[in-house]
Order: sequence, then C-alpha cells, then structure tokens
Amino acid sequence: MSIDRSKIQWNGWGWAAHKDSIPDAAWPWIAAELGMPSLLATPARPLEEIALPATRLDDEGRAKFAGIVGADRVHGDKYERAFHARGRSYHDLLYLRAGNIPSAPDAVIYPRGTDEVLALLSYASESGIAVVPFGGGTSVVGGVSANAGAFKVVISLDLSGMDRLIDVDHVSGMASAEAGIYGPALEKALQMKGVTLGHYPQSFEFSTLGGWIAHRGAGQQSGRYGKAEDWLASAKIATPRGLLSTQDFPKSAAGPRLTDFFVGSEGAFGIVTEAQFRVHAVPKVQDFRGFLFRDFATGAAAIREAVQNDVPVSMLRLSDPDETYFYRAFSKVGKRPGLKDKIEKAVLDWRGFGEKPCALIAVFEGDNDDVSHARKHFAKIAKNLGAMSIGSGPGKRWREGRFHGPYLRDPLMERGVGVDTLETATSWSKIDALYNAVRAALENSIRETAPRPGARGIVMCHISHSYATGASLYFTYIFPRALDGEVAQWQTIKKAASDAIAANGGTLSHHHGVGEDHLPWMAAEKGALGIDVLRAVKNALDPKGILNPGKLIP
Amino acid sequence: MSIDRSKIQWNGWGWAAHKDSIPDAAWPWIAAELGMPSLLATPARPLEEIALPATRLDDEGRAKFAGIVGADRVHGDKYERAFHARGRSYHDLLYLRAGNIPSAPDAVIYPRGTDEVLALLSYASESGIAVVPFGGGTSVVGGVSANAGAFKVVISLDLSGMDRLIDVDHVSGMASAEAGIYGPALEKALQMKGVTLGHYPQSFEFSTLGGWIAHRGAGQQSGRYGKAEDWLASAKIATPRGLLSTQDFPKSAAGPRLTDFFVGSEGAFGIVTEAQFRVHAVPKVQDFRGFLFRDFATGAAAIREAVQNDVPVSMLRLSDPDETYFYRAFSKVGKRPGLKDKIEKAVLDWRGFGEKPCALIAVFEGDNDDVSHARKHFAKIAKNLGAMSIGSGPGKRWREGRFHGPYLRDPLMERGVGVDTLETATSWSKIDALYNAVRAALENSIRETAPRPGARGIVMCHISHSYATGASLYFTYIFPRALDGEVAQWQTIKKAASDAIAANGGTLSHHHGVGEDHLPWMAAEKGALGIDVLRAVKNALDPKGILNPGKLIP
Repeated sequence: MSIDRSKIQWNGWGWAAHKDSIPDAAWPWIAAELGMPSLLATPARPLEEIALPATRLDDEGRAKFAGIVGADRVHGDKYERAFHARGRSYHDLLYLRAGNIPSAPDAVIYPRGTDEVLALLSYASESGIAVVPFGGGTSVVGGVSANAGAFKVVISLDLSGMDRLIDVDHVSGMASAEAGIYGPALEKALQMKGVTLGHYPQSFEFSTLGGWIAHRGAGQQSGRYGKAEDWLASAKIATPRGLLSTQDFPKSAAGPRLTDFFVGSEGAFGIVTEAQFRVHAVPKVQDFRGFLFRDFATGAAAIREAVQNDVPVSMLRLSDPDETYFYRAFSKVGKRPGLKDKIEKAVLDWRGFGEKPCALIAVFEGDNDDVSHARKHFAKIAKNLGAMSIGSGPGKRWREGRFHGPYLRDPLMERGVGVDTLETATSWSKIDALYNAVRAALENSIRETAPRPGARGIVMCHISHSYATGASLYFTYIFPRALDGEVAQWQTIKKAASDAIAANGGTLSHHHGVGEDHLPWMAAEKGALGIDVLRAVKNALDPKGILNPGKLIP
Repeated sequence: MSIDRSKIQWNGWGWAAHKDSIPDAAWPWIAAELGMPSLLATPARPLEEIALPATRLDDEGRAKFAGIVGADRVHGDKYERAFHARGRSYHDLLYLRAGNIPSAPDAVIYPRGTDEVLALLSYASESGIAVVPFGGGTSVVGGVSANAGAFKVVISLDLSGMDRLIDVDHVSGMASAEAGIYGPALEKALQMKGVTLGHYPQSFEFSTLGGWIAHRGAGQQSGRYGKAEDWLASAKIATPRGLLSTQDFPKSAAGPRLTDFFVGSEGAFGIVTEAQFRVHAVPKVQDFRGFLFRDFATGAAAIREAVQNDVPVSMLRLSDPDETYFYRAFSKVGKRPGLKDKIEKAVLDWRGFGEKPCALIAVFEGDNDDVSHARKHFAKIAKNLGAMSIGSGPGKRWREGRFHGPYLRDPLMERGVGVDTLETATSWSKIDALYNAVRAALENSIRETAPRPGARGIVMCHISHSYATGASLYFTYIFPRALDGEVAQWQTIKKAASDAIAANGGTLSHHHGVGEDHLPWMAAEKGALGIDVLRAVKNALDPKGILNPGKLIP
C-alpha cells in the first residue's frame, strides 16, 4: 500500500499528525461572524468507545476471499472497518465523529491486480455479496458508504495495493498506471520520467487515480490538463461478467466511445483497475498572478472572454466578495494592521474598489514564450474590465495552502461549527441567476436551521473551472451546528441548495460526483429515459447488482 | 426542405448539373498509372430502366403515417425510393449505377418536428416497421441503407424538412438547430448572427447537422472546432419509448454524460431531432500556409510537435509522397512545363527535396495577433525539421476545391475506374506501422483483384486530423475495376485494409462511422462486453429493434 492507512484519520481529514489549527484569536471573530455568543466544545468520540455492527461475512466467504488474495489481505479489524465505513464529507463526519456507524464493511479486501479483482467480483456476484470499490475514500458525496443494498454482506474492495506506474509512452504523450495509486506517488513516478498528469484536486494527497475517474473529478489546473473525462484515454474495467477494456484511439467514429460510459460511473458499472491517460511534459514555467475585480460579474466576464478566445490558462480562480473578504480577514485576525495594510487600504480606496472587491488568481504554464503571450493577453482583458494587478504573492500563497483547506474542517467541528462545500456548473448565460439562487438558498436555510435566532452562516463562492460555454461555481459554507439535529440540519441545507441548482439550470455536481447524497436529484437531471439507459448499462455488466449499491442510479 | 432533392444525383455525387469533369488529356495518363492499356466506357443505368421492389407498406400503414405528417409528406415514388435506398459510397454506387436495388424504403416520410418523429416511432415500434433515419444521405459506410432487418417493411425517415435554426446564445457561445438542416443553410443562418459552427466535412454541401452527430463526424478544421463529440452540447433524441433530452452543462460529474452515448449512435438508439452546439465568433483572419517536407515521417513529427505544444492550428493536412505527387501531376497533365515549373524543380533539386516531397497545408484562424503567434510557432517547428515554406497559394487552391473531390468519382466510374476512401486513427507511436500496413494491404489487394496482370492502384494518404496523443490517416485509392466481380473486388480490398487496421492498433473509422460496411470488425474493436453495453442501451430505448437495423451493433 502506498500510504500507511493507520496514519490517516478515520473520522477526519488527512494525516493524523497534521497540525494546521485555527489560532485562538480567531474563535471570537468566527463566533461573531456566525452571530453566536460563543462556541461549544464538541469533541469526536474515540474509536475505542464505538461499537461497530458484527461482521456478517461467514467463514466460508472469508476463506473464499482469502483464497483469491491471500489471508493477509482480507481485513476485519475495527480500524479498517471504521476507516472504510464512509467517505469524508461533512455529512459523513457527523456520523463518524458521533460514533454512529450502523453500517460498516463486513471485510476490507486488498487485491493486487486486475485478475484478483475479476475473481473477487465473480465470487461476490455468484454469492450475492455487495462490493463497494474504495480508492482513497475521500468522497464528499457518500460515494463509498458501506451500503449492502439488497444483500446481507458488503465488502470494501480497496484498490490501494494496486499502485504501479505501468508505462510512459513519450511519443504519444500517454501513460498508464494501476488505479489504486495515490496522487503524490503517481506524480512522483511520472515526473521522474519528465511528464505530468497535472491533476491536482484539493484531495490530491489522499485520493487515487481510479477515484478521480470513478467520480469524474477535476484538478485545480483543469484549464490546461482537463477533467478526468478529458485526460482518460482508455481503461481496464473489471465487472462481474469479466473484463472490459476500452481503446486508446485519439478519436474514433466506430460508435460511441465506451471510455466515456465509465467516467463518472462511480463503481456501479465495474471497477477501473488500470487507466491510460494523457500526460504533458513538465512545464518549464509556472506563473501565478493575482488580480482584483470590482465585483463578481466583472471577474466572471474576464474569465469568459479569456476562455472563449482560447487564451491558454491553467487556472482562473475568482472568489466572490464574501470569499475574498473572509480569507483576507481570517488571515489578519488578531493582528494589528501594519503600514502595509494601511497602504493597501488606501490604494483600494483611491482606485474605487470599495469594501469588498473580488480576488482572482490566474495560473499560466508552459515555456517562457507561451506563458508570456498568455499572461499578457489575460492581463489586457482584465485591465480593460477595470481590474487591478496585485502581483504574484496571492497566487503563491494560494499554491502553498492549496491542499490544506479540508484540514480546517476538523477544528471547526470540534467547536460546534459546521463547514461543507458544494459545487455546480452551468452555461455563462445562466451563471448569475444560479449564483444568486444557490447563495440565497444556503443563507436562508442556514438561518432557518440555526441553533438560535440571529445566528447565520458565512457563505462564500468561487469560480474555479471555466469553459467556453460556462463555468463551475464552488460554494463553501460555515454555519453554527444545530447540535440537537445535525443530520436533519444538513439535509435541509443540502436540499435547499440542490433544489435551487436544479431550478436554475445547474448540474448536481461539477466534480464531486453523485454518490448517495445527490441521488434524490438524479432522475430530474438525467430524465426517466436517461436513468433507464444508465440502469441498462449496469444490468449488462452487473446483472445481480452487487456493485456499489445505492450510488449513481436511483 | 432546404434542398430540392430532384436536383441532387440519386446514383452519384452532388448537384446533377455540376460539371467538374476530368480533362481528356488525363485519361491516357490515368490508364498508364493504373497499368492498364486503355479504359472502358462503363455508364450507369438510367432510373427508367431499373425496377424497384414493390412497396410492402399497406394502405393502413400509409394512412397512419399520413395521419401523423400529412399525406403530402409520405412519398412512394420511384425517384424518392431510389434516392433513399442507399448512401453514396463507392460500394453503394456499384449497386445504384448497376440498377441492382433489391431493397428500397417502402415509403419516405418527411416529419416537421420532434413530436411528429415521436409519433412516427411510436407507431412503427407498435407495428414492427423498421425505420432508417436519413439526413443528407451521404454516408460512405452503408449507414442509411434501407435494411428492414427482421421486419417486413422499412421506411426512410427523412429529417430534411426539419431545418430551422432555433436559437443563438451569444453569451454562452452556443446555438441550437433542428437536426435536418444542411451545412450551407446552417452556416448561413449562423454567420448572419456573427457566429460559426466551423464544421466543414468534404460532404458539407449535402450533409446535415443530425448526420454529423449520428456518425461522429469531423470537419476539415477540427483542430479549432473539434469533432461532433467535441462541439455537441446537448441533444433531443426521439426514441420509440419517448423523448430523451440531454443537458448542456459545460461539464458535470453527475454520472456519465448521456450526450456522449448518442454521438456516433447512427440512429440505432434514437433519432437526434434537435441539437445544441458550441459556436465561435466568425474569425477575423483565416490564414493558409503551405510547406514541403522531405518525407512523411518528418511532416508527421512537425504536426505532433505542434499539437503536443498546443499551437492553435485550425488544420494541418499532410499528404504522403504519392498523394503529393498525384495531385501535382494530375494538375499538370497535358500541359507543357513552363518557366515556373522549371524554376520550381530547380529549387526542389537544389534544396535536396528529391522527386517525392510531402506537402502540408496549415490553416490558422482567429484575430491577427493569435494567427501571427501560431503561424510563427508552427513555421519555426517546420523549419527546424527542414521543411520549405511554399507560401499561401497551395492552401488557397485547396480551399477552393475542398468540397469537389467526390465529384471526380463519377467520371472515373464512367470509365471502369474505381475510387474509394477509408480512414482510421491511432496514437503517434503506432502511426508509422499503421500507415505502412494499410498502404501495403491496399496495394496488394488491388493488385490481386485487378482485371489483368500488371494492373495496379494509386494509393494515397494524408494526415488530416491531429491530436496530442495521435492522428488520423485518410487513404484514397484509385484502381481498375474488375468488371466481372466488382462487389467482390471491393470486399476483398476493404477486408484487407480493415484487417490491417485492426492488426495495427487503428480504429475502424475516425469520422466516417460504422454503418453496414464496418460491422464485421466492430466486435473485435469494442470487445464482447462492449457490444453488450451498446446492445443494452439500444434495448432500453428501442425494445423492438426497429431503428436502423444492421448498423452499428453486430
């Protein structure tokens, strides 16, 4: 296994040893922002105190699985079962931190290759055992919940033992690897050969190649490297009916491209065991630039103009006024304003940027000439829209902290504060309405479910992935938890936001996936016939329905 | 209907009035190149002399169809039935020109909108009537053959009456139109609003939006505008079970993207009645540049370097030595070499380009600054690989004649000469082997099936669509017809080429589709489980199997 799981938190984010806590001075400020007089201590229950349901895998089943992968790769201890019980969303953590784990895998199995996965699926299908494919387990939509569906027994099929880089084809710009490889191991192996996949989701350190494909993920630099559906060239997919291998043609008109059927299939059609993907030469230059815009709409207009004119940007990340304000205020909390802050404020006032401008971070990659051409082009677009350049500092700071965001959730959850994210995408002509509707839905539902009158949430948003025809919106919301009904509170907020998304032409998810959490809205988004198509594909490959029950298909 | 079908050839290419014949002086030269002492007159049979099978649609069926679309939109005359009997491949023309038409649609029906298509499909499914969707009918792979499959009656469902531009969303860079609109009508309507789809296949004048989607087509400028799978945003698909509408999100992680399931589905899953697609602003500049390379591999290396370094090219079209030679010789045949030709030859000799260099035409589009940046970048790559710039003339000449190629097939077929094309794609590391294998397969099979010893073919190839991971190869082959067994000769050549493609990592088709002609190789390309998946989707939407029998799914 490429990561020692015992060093990763089973009921929180990332390395157990990581300390990225919130400074003491910030707590009163957070409480005030949330309209709360004070924040309570709400610690998680330790694993020792928690009871898991008894395993339902009998000795025969265990022996069968052990016969396929070896007894040392069939795990049933408490830590393994708890680790694999759920993903790592706020919703998941409500259950895990409370020790409320009514469903955990009856065994966790670590195959070493495609043949073993095929044998495991064949036996599980024959015996009616549900199988939940598991990569890094960082799903934030309930994609890896140990849901047995109609079956009695459920196993977690953990692919992290399948972590080899198989091949790099420098001529064709493609590489292939086993699906269980973690982000850092994959990039290290690739970069030693001079190439990169460039897929850096916020979960990068703890998520896997196969997981990125299964949930149709996006990395932060998707402008250059694309989403999973863009960089995936071909895949080996193990199914209960055998192996399905797709082809790596650059393009084809020999019917629909089967690879497309599996990107975002969330382990419900089969398990991606190996993947071939596009790689780029490691760029010579990576250039970060910050800009301030007067408002969100103007920043969005700059992004739109850039992508519709094919300006080669690696990332354009535009925070809305509240997100820009929050991160700036959070970083300064408890510090006395220095001369730099005063000059900064004076410049903003003089340029007429008001109290709440919007920050945009642009990343350009390539050789010197390309980066310079792209940067100049974007700077010209930004300037014409009245933006102010703020140099390379903010971008560099963003880069340093770009995987750290999720770590802040744990200390907040220790103090009665909830934090969740959701994301969507729509076309440019609908983006203002979608932004306003989701923001209002979050603010209102948080206010309505708050533990006391006057309490409120901090609702922030950024555009992080943009395309010629539209863009994604990523919301982060922080709120005072209703400690007597936390799951119901989350469901109310989630429902309000998802209903607003559906009513305003947004997709349920731009890169988090469907899982269990978005399932209630899937039929509306895909249509009844669309769901029939997905179900038909599933039935063709998984006739007993053992694969990841309760996800993707309502 | 946007084109008067009576003015289009039913057994040849394009406008009946078009005269683009081969000069008299060329015939002896063509005969010599083919190793033939002379060429015979092989005229097509006129429609009056040809018998079509009696229609099997009874009065009740005709009345039902007339009740849906109106009696004036249900056609059963000989011209309509012959026009819709087959596509326009060399293989098709062998049958049509010989008057060998054992299967023709029992009726040709012209619906006016999605609701009528739905009603037609509902009735046809109920009554067991096969339905062949028909756009422009220019398929070159047997995609529109009036094949009744397991049914007694087959109708051709002609969408050319559905030809409205529905909407242009300038903000989102998308437009939508009815699927039966022809290329020129679509571009005219779009360009009047300042935008373009930019999809210019060789069949542009006689093919439709829906056809491009159904067969996963590519236009000549796919480098900028993409293939159908790239520009299609969403579609309305009429099926026997009702309407399936896909969503136009720029990206989504809410499961697999259903739009992808239908691009290349060849009317076997449903009929695309409306499509929404990406549009670009009409480019300010369109710049054509010609280059000569010493050999095919060096030209291919230049293309690879350009696309892997994201040089924004609209088209890079590299002819192999024989194609470069043929078009040059053909244009000069019967003319005495002038001073210009002598200088040209002297320059080539002096620069060491030998007898058979390779011509490349590059097209750049955008605003002045972008075009200039891209052109300089590509010129630098070409120069570093020893290429010689040959100015803008060859590109402009190519542009003028770019839709005329298929017209030359008819006069050749009048003189005992066959001409066919096929195309494939593979990754860059396999392209040399694929090129050599397919070329050898064509040359050998043509020699083996030639009407006399010593006769041979002219086999030419170009790279016309290129991607970071690979490129397409487009072969044109001209050969003396074995008049006593023309279909068998074509089958032998087709089999040799397709076997070579399959054995060397190529796809059956890059942009022509599957149809009936590629069906025997589909199971090998997609795998047994892959075919099961396609069949499952079809069964979910077309449970009786009435849609386009005998295409796509073996």
